[in-house]
Amino acid sequence: MKEKLSYIGRSLPRKDALIKAVGAAQYADDREFAGLLHAAAVRSPRPRIKILSISDARARRLPGYVTLVTYRDIKGVNKWPVVMQDYPFLPEKEARFAGETVALVVAATARAARKAAALVEIKYRELPFVEDPLKALEKDAVKIFGDDNVISSFVIKKGSVDAALKKAAYTAEGEFSTNYQVHAYLETQGAIALPESDGGMTVHSTTQCPFYVLDAVAAALGIPYHKVKILQTVTGGGFGGKEDVPALVASHAALCAAKTGKPVKLIYGRKEDFQSMSKRHPGWARVAYAADKSGRITACRVNYVLDGGAYSTLSPIVLWRGTVHAAGPYKIANVDIKTYAAATNKVPCGAFRGFGQPQVCFAQESLIDELAEKVGMDPVQFRLKNLLEPGDRTVTGQKLNSSCGLKELVQTVRKRSGWDKKAKPRAAAGDVATGIGFSATYYGVGLGAKGRYLDRAGALVNIYKDSSVGVNVGNTEMGQGALTVLAQIAAETLNAPYESVKVEEVDSSKVPDSGPTVASRTTLMSGNAIIEAAAPLRERIFKTAFSLLSAAGADASKKMVAAGGIFSMGGKSVDFRKVVAECWFRRLKMSEQGWYAAPRTTFRMEDGQGDAYVIYSYSADAAEVEVDLKTGVAKVKKIWAAYDVGRIVNPRLAVGQAQGGILQGMSWALYENLIYKNGIMVNPNFTDYVIATTADKPEYDITFIEKPYAGGPYKAKGMGEVPLIGVAPAVANAIKNACGARVNSVPLLPEKIWKELKKVAAR
Amino acid sequence: MKEKLSYIGRSLPRKDALIKAVGAAQYADDREFAGLLHAAAVRSPRPRIKILSISDARARRLPGYVTLVTYRDIKGVNKWPVVMQDYPFLPEKEARFAGETVALVVAATARAARKAAALVEIKYRELPFVEDPLKALEKDAVKIFGDDNVISSFVIKKGSVDAALKKAAYTAEGEFSTNYQVHAYLETQGAIALPESDGGMTVHSTTQCPFYVLDAVAAALGIPYHKVKILQTVTGGGFGGKEDVPALVASHAALCAAKTGKPVKLIYGRKEDFQSMSKRHPGWARVAYAADKSGRITACRVNYVLDGGAYSTLSPIVLWRGTVHAAGPYKIANVDIKTYAAATNKVPCGAFRGFGQPQVCFAQESLIDELAEKVGMDPVQFRLKNLLEPGDRTVTGQKLNSSCGLKELVQTVRKRSGWDKKAKPRAAAGDVATGIGFSATYYGVGLGAKGRYLDRAGALVNIYKDSSVGVNVGNTEMGQGALTVLAQIAAETLNAPYESVKVEEVDSSKVPDSGPTVASRTTLMSGNAIIEAAAPLRERIFKTAFSLLSAAGADASKKMVAAGGIFSMGGKSVDFRKVVAECWFRRLKMSEQGWYAAPRTTFRMEDGQGDAYVIYSYSADAAEVEVDLKTGVAKVKKIWAAYDVGRIVNPRLAVGQAQGGILQGMSWALYENLIYKNGIMVNPNFTDYVIATTADKPEYDITFIEKPYAGGPYKAKGMGEVPLIGVAPAVANAIKNACGARVNSVPLLPEKIWKELKKVAAR
Repeated sequence: MKEKLSYIGRSLPRKDALIKAVGAAQYADDREFAGLLHAAAVRSPRPRIKILSISDARARRLPGYVTLVTYRDIKGVNKWPVVMQDYPFLPEKEARFAGETVALVVAATARAARKAAALVEIKYRELPFVEDPLKALEKDAVKIFGDDNVISSFVIKKGSVDAALKKAAYTAEGEFSTNYQVHAYLETQGAIALPESDGGMTVHSTTQCPFYVLDAVAAALGIPYHKVKILQTVTGGGFGGKEDVPALVASHAALCAAKTGKPVKLIYGRKEDFQSMSKRHPGWARVAYAADKSGRITACRVNYVLDGGAYSTLSPIVLWRGTVHAAGPYKIANVDIKTYAAATNKVPCGAFRGFGQPQVCFAQESLIDELAEKVGMDPVQFRLKNLLEPGDRTVTGQKLNSSCGLKELVQTVRKRSGWDKKAKPRAAAGDVATGIGFSATYYGVGLGAKGRYLDRAGALVNIYKDSSVGVNVGNTEMGQGALTVLAQIAAETLNAPYESVKVEEVDSSKVPDSGPTVASRTTLMSGNAIIEAAAPLRERIFKTAFSLLSAAGADASKKMVAAGGIFSMGGKSVDFRKVVAECWFRRLKMSEQGWYAAPRTTFRMEDGQGDAYVIYSYSADAAEVEVDLKTGVAKVKKIWAAYDVGRIVNPRLAVGQAQGGILQGMSWALYENLIYKNGIMVNPNFTDYVIATTADKPEYDITFIEKPYAGGPYKAKGMGEVPLIGVAPAVANAIKNACGARVNSVPLLPEKIWKELKKVAAR
Repeated sequence: MKEKLSYIGRSLPRKDALIKAVGAAQYADDREFAGLLHAAAVRSPRPRIKILSISDARARRLPGYVTLVTYRDIKGVNKWPVVMQDYPFLPEKEARFAGETVALVVAATARAARKAAALVEIKYRELPFVEDPLKALEKDAVKIFGDDNVISSFVIKKGSVDAALKKAAYTAEGEFSTNYQVHAYLETQGAIALPESDGGMTVHSTTQCPFYVLDAVAAALGIPYHKVKILQTVTGGGFGGKEDVPALVASHAALCAAKTGKPVKLIYGRKEDFQSMSKRHPGWARVAYAADKSGRITACRVNYVLDGGAYSTLSPIVLWRGTVHAAGPYKIANVDIKTYAAATNKVPCGAFRGFGQPQVCFAQESLIDELAEKVGMDPVQFRLKNLLEPGDRTVTGQKLNSSCGLKELVQTVRKRSGWDKKAKPRAAAGDVATGIGFSATYYGVGLGAKGRYLDRAGALVNIYKDSSVGVNVGNTEMGQGALTVLAQIAAETLNAPYESVKVEEVDSSKVPDSGPTVASRTTLMSGNAIIEAAAPLRERIFKTAFSLLSAAGADASKKMVAAGGIFSMGGKSVDFRKVVAECWFRRLKMSEQGWYAAPRTTFRMEDGQGDAYVIYSYSADAAEVEVDLKTGVAKVKKIWAAYDVGRIVNPRLAVGQAQGGILQGMSWALYENLIYKNGIMVNPNFTDYVIATTADKPEYDITFIEKPYAGGPYKAKGMGEVPLIGVAPAVANAIKNACGARVNSVPLLPEKIWKELKKVAAR
């Protein structure tokens, strides 16, 4: 049977384009239900308090007020079931960060609920708190988590770094830090919980991870999973910010619904979303590299600390990914990586595109430039000498067998950016200095060894009698294009017309727990699950098509060709619709549940050796930057980027992912600056917290080098997070290249650049 | 591996008992939605009209009035897709029965909608109409369907009936008729349609057959199936009345929702439900039997006519079932059966428990008694001589290979009822004569040859991480206990605790088209589909249990025993919950879509020979009746019944089905009397249309003889319709036995009995 690809690799239109363009998409707050009540959170005003009492005496006088919900209303277990389970759904005695939900009020309208929340009185005693993660790890710090404030810690150890550093021809060492990043999704957190007649609960949730919501709601209510149904609403952006926290929001809505017996909607305002929802962890890293005379990197030491905030949530997993990737995508014989997530009395940090990598990547890729300078090599040449190639082993000892196009990416970006000419120091034009900077990164696709029990996904594929196809998966669309890419995979596998395939938003009762929609794993995991579900359907369809063509007199000695929804053989053809009708007539099974579990990993936590991830994606970035020497303001003019994310399913969407990732990375690198003072967030809004806008966007030059991954659906790997990771160090390196200022702290604010410029001038 | 049954054969509590007992069950009219509008039907006032115009000019002045919906609003095809497709969703030029929906109005409240419907003016011209089905078949009848008013017609021909009748020692012949039966479900028809943002439609429908609703809504709206989702609401009774017609009601709601862009609820009042929704077909049958000297039945001739009403709907299928079973469960060499469904300008008749069998069974089982009398044999003895046994062939030539307990049933009822003593004519006690009557019937389970393309079913079984089990099927609970029986089958197969299994009401997007919930096929079809889905899950669970027990040091030379949710081996045990947790830990696939297609049938429509159904259930009934000789009032004192419906999954529910079926059969036999005059239904309400109540219920004596069917789930066959079929002839035969009055017309009203008593007295 001859085959060619009909839909994979084509820029087919987004499945959700129309409803989003015309404003018909139903986000959480758009959904209305009869008898709906509204909830609002009562939040802790201080960084750490002992709760003495909570009173709704004043709120009760408010028209429309319904009730107060506290931890006493929890029929299940008061532990949000996420990794370490230290976060209560609602605190019983102590609240640990300013903005933490301590209770909820329910009222007839959202306005009344918000007013009532403001009228609830929390009596409390302030407790000593911790703000700085490095100080949190000091011996005499106030203890707020275990007996050392360490949420989590990992190591990677290989060879002898001390010895290598001692005998190194060149070393470079530095301390780097990065600040928070706010997800800045268009749609804030929200959920609607609807009590069912059997004591069950249906929850509409804007979420990346419906199964985390399922876990949490079942736990909070103390009811079996089969009585809980989670429906993902159209989700207005996630970026990791809708990984874990929607489960908390949804559980709060569910507790309110269970108490009142009515549907309850809980939608966050922007300020409370800033104050209480997860953020990219502030990071601190001390990195040291050693190289021999030839410029070969011989050792790397990393100490890496993340500011976990008041509860552990996803910090262990975020930290682990950062740990694995901390030394960069290089061949290094001697490695010593130690990492910590420290507890502080601030907002709990969690998942954010890049997931613990960007912070340490900023450090190590900045320092690679410093080391190259010491060695006396061009930073790209230096990287090319050391980069991982197929057959090499990563710092965890994992052998890269295939699908590693990193060197080609670097060469591509080098060539397309005109690196070899531009990298030489250029004279400033008046007050404006121009420079170019480089970075190279890798990214383990999927959850890897630390999340391996979750690295599986299901897919339910229904082919209806009219030949329309309904695909259900456990991973979500949140703007990234999953509905479209997964429809392409289904259409390709079934030889169904693309238009006839619909991928639904997630219903947790249709597909088994498919893990979270994170780690750039959706195309790989759900794509493979769809193929697994579709395979027997494909066989039935293809056999039926063959028999129809044979019966129509087609020359069966010719090969049957299936393309674009048409089956052809020996001059005859039949379309998908007719074939499906015949399958139904024959009473063939036209619905299948698929399942894909990622291959096993071998990573050992003791020494950080073994296969950490099944496969890696790669990126190379060059950033051209202008620095205003008078003000220190840096502006990114252009980014050249190349990616190996395996086969590209939809080029237009892939470019969109790349542009979005670059802009979000640049925004973090240059602008985003969330500030805490005395344990209180001082700029929880988009007036005082600045993000890049389209006015700031650089010119993009994006190239894909498609190194096929045999284990991926149509040889794809994963894409979503890859473009963000290398942006900040490329920009920092470009600033250094432009004006000699090495800024070790993200965001690369004008005042920081200006300060370094002063130092340069003083040298 | 040693096995014993834990849940099959046990009277476990109904899964829906609690929500129904406390009034929490959400029937269609209980469901509220934000922004809900309400629809009401505008109905034809006369039996047959040419529609000249429809005007809502007066309705428009009503507060809350929204819009009028006519056939012009149909974007799809104006043909309700059921069998012959002659029924338009809304009539364009001609309405064919009084009560037919000709248009719909939408308003803000149900009350306003009803008022508005009354204000809509239909201008029409009356057309000549047909009321009597026998007259409809006459040459000079007004033609309303094709050129002969024949909706459908079947034959069964075997041997030579003419010759056999000629040389018969005994013959009996008679003409019998039966009237309508109204389903009298507690919940009238209703649906709520909710427009989706992508142009799709979600419909909540009280229905036996969600996939018929899916077909219809997709057709009416002209949208692909994957944009339509049908959710079955808790269904307050069906009995066949929610087989086809909910699709029409739901399509009407969907048309209103599509036009207004708002959710629309359409709930029928009782009167309009009477007037327009399907009924049991009035039947007319002329039957002749011949027997030889020994009492062996040698021939049977049946002419059978059903009053189909104004549109064909399910009449062809109903008639076919009646045709197959028309000669009764006897060995007969010569058979000549001709059957017709005739069109009339009355309510279209459709499915009703028994599905075309009770009408003709009343005729032939009455006449068997007459023949026995002529032969001079006791009617039970006579039946025993002629009844089908394993190895025999039915009148269609189908060989009964196994699972045929009919003779045992007859012997059982004979013995338990004290037949041999009671059957002798008894002297009346004052004005009250007591008698006993008998009947024997068979019932082809499932859709059989005529519906074979629909005789398949799917099931989606999800085992959640907490070990709760969610089972989704395509067949419905409508009071008969499907949720319970199917949960028992799932629990048994998986060795899951019964309490942990939940069977959901149907969601058409979860399981493939599973055909209708009719023909007593749910246990068999959905049960088998569940087993098919559960089989690979069972294998994974059992293997995992074995490995856990082995790892715990259990002696693996002992057999593993799985019972009641516990796995035991060599003194160790582990429960389902732990085993499932381990399966999830191992990332095994814990969700499967199952599929079951019934074996092929070989029935030929040309001569009615071949295998008509895959398997048959059987019943025998004895009815003891008191007849008031002064008034002609008959009262059933006791029914002894025995059934072979294969393995009984839940004895208490089976008894419930039997009691309900007997009472409904008795009600039809004695009381129910829907009257048309000049094409208008005169008693569309429960004041004037009388049904049996609990006050009328006889004493029940119910026995099951479980002849295992190897092809059934845990060897079950089908039960739902069986108990109704033989009641009427047993009662009629008992009346004859009591007082000599042979009434050939159901209902067996006092005036008819009285009339026959007069004749008896006159003899």
